[in-house]
Amino acid sequence: MARNIVPKEQDYSQWYLDVIRASELADYAPVRGCMVIRPTGYALWEAIQRAFDEAFKESGHVNAYFPLLIPSSFLEKEAEHVEGFAPECAVVTHAGGDDLEEPLVIRPTSETVIGHMYSKWVQSWRDLPILINQWCNVMRWEKRPRLFLRTSEFLWQEGHTAHATREEAMEETLRMLEIYRRIMEEHLALPVIAGEKSEGERFPGADNTYTCETMMSDGKALQAGTSHFLGQNFAKAFDISFQSQEGRQEFAWTTSWGVSTRLIGAIIMTHSDNDGLVLPPRVAPVKAVIVPISTDDAVLQERLLPRAKELADRLNAHLGPRSVAVDTQFHLRPADRFFHHLQKGVPLRLELGEKELAALSVRSVRRDTADKRDLSWEGLEGAVASILETMQADLLAKAREFRLARTRSVETFEEFKERLDREGGFLEAYFAGGKAEEKAIKEATMATVRCFPLDDDSRGTCFFTGKKDAKRAIFARAY
Amino acid sequence: MARNIVPKEQDYSQWYLDVIRASELADYAPVRGCMVIRPTGYALWEAIQRAFDEAFKESGHVNAYFPLLIPSSFLEKEAEHVEGFAPECAVVTHAGGDDLEEPLVIRPTSETVIGHMYSKWVQSWRDLPILINQWCNVMRWEKRPRLFLRTSEFLWQEGHTAHATREEAMEETLRMLEIYRRIMEEHLALPVIAGEKSEGERFPGADNTYTCETMMSDGKALQAGTSHFLGQNFAKAFDISFQSQEGRQEFAWTTSWGVSTRLIGAIIMTHSDNDGLVLPPRVAPVKAVIVPISTDDAVLQERLLPRAKELADRLNAHLGPRSVAVDTQFHLRPADRFFHHLQKGVPLRLELGEKELAALSVRSVRRDTADKRDLSWEGLEGAVASILETMQADLLAKAREFRLARTRSVETFEEFKERLDREGGFLEAYFAGGKAEEKAIKEATMATVRCFPLDDDSRGTCFFTGKKDAKRAIFARAY
Repeated sequence: MARNIVPKEQDYSQWYLDVIRASELADYAPVRGCMVIRPTGYALWEAIQRAFDEAFKESGHVNAYFPLLIPSSFLEKEAEHVEGFAPECAVVTHAGGDDLEEPLVIRPTSETVIGHMYSKWVQSWRDLPILINQWCNVMRWEKRPRLFLRTSEFLWQEGHTAHATREEAMEETLRMLEIYRRIMEEHLALPVIAGEKSEGERFPGADNTYTCETMMSDGKALQAGTSHFLGQNFAKAFDISFQSQEGRQEFAWTTSWGVSTRLIGAIIMTHSDNDGLVLPPRVAPVKAVIVPISTDDAVLQERLLPRAKELADRLNAHLGPRSVAVDTQFHLRPADRFFHHLQKGVPLRLELGEKELAALSVRSVRRDTADKRDLSWEGLEGAVASILETMQADLLAKAREFRLARTRSVETFEEFKERLDREGGFLEAYFAGGKAEEKAIKEATMATVRCFPLDDDSRGTCFFTGKKDAKRAIFARAY
Repeated sequence: MARNIVPKEQDYSQWYLDVIRASELADYAPVRGCMVIRPTGYALWEAIQRAFDEAFKESGHVNAYFPLLIPSSFLEKEAEHVEGFAPECAVVTHAGGDDLEEPLVIRPTSETVIGHMYSKWVQSWRDLPILINQWCNVMRWEKRPRLFLRTSEFLWQEGHTAHATREEAMEETLRMLEIYRRIMEEHLALPVIAGEKSEGERFPGADNTYTCETMMSDGKALQAGTSHFLGQNFAKAFDISFQSQEGRQEFAWTTSWGVSTRLIGAIIMTHSDNDGLVLPPRVAPVKAVIVPISTDDAVLQERLLPRAKELADRLNAHLGPRSVAVDTQFHLRPADRFFHHLQKGVPLRLELGEKELAALSVRSVRRDTADKRDLSWEGLEGAVASILETMQADLLAKAREFRLARTRSVETFEEFKERLDREGGFLEAYFAGGKAEEKAIKEATMATVRCFPLDDDSRGTCFFTGKKDAKRAIFARAY
């Protein structure tokens, strides 16, 4: 067990922060609530971005960039939106040496300014759909900051689309939810439940919000990404209207959807252990590290190091540039060198000592299981790729099993409270309450409706109101 | 000639804005001085980013992310720096519903906050060098905004490195300048002069500033990127100190270097013509467009379109995903469809009509020269790639010839003024003046020292002060 990391069983919050510090993913910025994403963390974010960005582009979306600063009057055009975001805004009141006539808010999200631009760009049905995404920073002032999970500034992508019909916009909302689900599972190894949010958990200004919910290793839920059907709310507020094919003037239907650097928090809390960070190979910036080891400096420098570099070059040609590193921290003991990469979450360690040199092999050690194998130099590319694929699949399966083992069906509020206090996790229950009931449950238990899963069309009696024909919901305490 | 674009000979400024509007690269944001980078412009920025980012990573740099907001006291720690940037800052004075104790500025550049973090991360010589870059938005309040060239918010990369010795930091400064020069020439087809800035044109807080200067098609200069040797100025202001291998406590030596969305302005003003945008193929988001044409709708839909898609798939497999598009604007006349892609700067148009279908060929038309060729479907990948390569080289060669033809050596101030007024362009002159002389020249002529070219070690008599042994400088009016 790592001496610089508190065990998660002892103090989960501290464990989380210790893992981040030990892996050098992030650091605190001098401005309270803001973070610095260090190179290891940022490379992870780049890998996450690549996976989502490629899926967005494949499905016909294009990227653009909208301004950071939004006139405060824009926020006020959509009543629910301003109510939701105004309390969290950071406000610029002077610039270039002068007081501004109108205060500008740093974007907490960009529906308003993008709505304003779309109203200029959309005239005819031929201008639709608009399928735009942007990768950027946003700011929501945070009173209780937590690295990656809740920071005043964070990085994200926000997709904003406009369509001619309700059906098309709803299709898009669900298409993006499914893309989120797929990338989260296939690349981030996060098993997620795709579902609809309850009334009390909707995005301010949305008609419906859909979400991918995932369970952390303390049994709490984390909202990993959301997709919003905005109806005509923003189109009416910003006059996104068009002449239809039939010659009528109509309002467009819009959607928005986003995932953020919060996903890094989800990866940490899903896969990591008491030794430090564990990363799914597909998004790990360094997928394997070759560690040459010898007490004889001449052997190390003249025989092992050149061979290690050669093997790394071969592996990089196969796995992608800079996927495989060579460790040259020869001033440290081997155990410390191993530990360094282990804490940073490198999926595979490849040890190369004199014994391996003689056998024309390397000894591979998996980060998640410590499973060891001797791999021949011949065909090393395929062997390494195959271990990484297996590890990727294993991490997803393990997280899915963990969630299933901590998910219970409950039928009464007594049972609900008892289960939640005894073992946490996810509770499945038929629920037909509204905002008031959601609030009452939250106040009594700190648990919220995470979602109504889309793949569950069963109906039953509401555990809280006793109403019939209620949909099944997932409840949990959440980040 | 395009009716929606004023000829550059008539009004260069208006031509520039017309090209941007017609190609849909950018639009004005509702906040004065800020811009929206539209999908075509952003895809161009992504291609530019990819080229630079790969070169940074190949040379050992890693990306990270530092916060948007900087305590205003940080700026004040380096005297020249605050003098240079404070007048341009946008300031956040309240956030989350409260007045802030200390105002926060939106980063105009990040030397200060990064210096603060490096002082935490650097203890020993083993922690050096730090070779970090970040891609982000910055804000410098602009009184005379101009799309891409001067906007209050712009996107850029800023590299920040820290080293144990002066020599290493100077090497890094020049290494990055050379990477800039190479990428600008090889990918953006911008012929640049790499040189050192004069005293009056240095970055606030730098000991030396190096620059890549390039000539626009009106003969004015544009600073396309800069690399700064910061000496120990920021290391002392932020206490970036370390224990050397010999056990002494020393200050680090730092550098910073940046290129921005301004490069898009440079590309427009170097290559475009009176019909609209012209893009170098390597950074063009869409490299070729296949345009099926027929007056017979059945032929169009059943015979030409499937074939066009097939050819596009083949070309995309060779040139990269989404490099080649198929035009389906069948409601427009062929001439309007051609014009659409021409104004957007697509390097190659591939026309596919009934004649071409019969001949198993396409007719290719180059954007820059209107050069037409019939290309067989067989081996189309190689033929298209080869035309694109030729066009890339031609654009660079043409821009270089243009600059050479508008560069003159002058020996007296009279000649300087006369040449500048008569034909603009670049003036080469030996110059040994300081800040005062630079200011006098600028006030008299609006021209500034662009740089002292690094590849020119000749010496002569200063045209302005008469001093001997002066270095050769390039002067020009600049953006």
